[in-house]
Amino acid sequence: MTPEVAINFRERAYSLLQADAEKIVKLIQVQMDHLTMPQCPLYEEVLDTQMFGLSREIDFAVRLGLVDEKDGKAILDRLERELSALHEACTKKTKK
Amino acid sequence: MTPEVAINFRERAYSLLQADAEKIVKLIQVQMDHLTMPQCPLYEEVLDTQMFGLSREIDFAVRLGLVDEKDGKAILDRLERELSALHEACTKKTKK
Repeated sequence: MTPEVAINFRERAYSLLQADAEKIVKLIQVQMDHLTMPQCPLYEEVLDTQMFGLSREIDFAVRLGLVDEKDGKAILDRLERELSALHEACTKKTKK
Repeated sequence: MTPEVAINFRERAYSLLQADAEKIVKLIQVQMDHLTMPQCPLYEEVLDTQMFGLSREIDFAVRLGLVDEKDGKAILDRLERELSALHEACTKKTKK
């Protein structure tokens, strides 16, 4: 395998996955901004679906040998933390 | 880009997607085999989830430039036809 070409595909894979992860972060932020509303309109199903979709993309990239397993896990872990923070903020808001 | 390496990644991407599509075909066949039971235990949610996951993998492979859009669409179209046949068979069975 020619190293340059492998790096080219790898970079593209990482950049696509990061872009897709950013879209989910934006969805989470939109939800955070709506915590001031009477109910917390958590689009849990939408977020779960997007997380599942991204996890399948990452899994595919890992199986292709383009993305390291630990890097893929790191992308999902970061999103999981953001999601936890959203749930926590919403629970606190609801309890008030 | 070195052609051989690009072909290598392309072949791997096609073979992974075909393998994932085959898994869904098997799920559909299992459902078909259960049509003889009193109810049709259509695992619609399971099948829908798997179809969505595969469509995300295909979309990712197309965006990476590893898989042609028409080939990705052909994989999904074939599965959609199998799913339609399953639904039809189940509807006929229920009407009896």
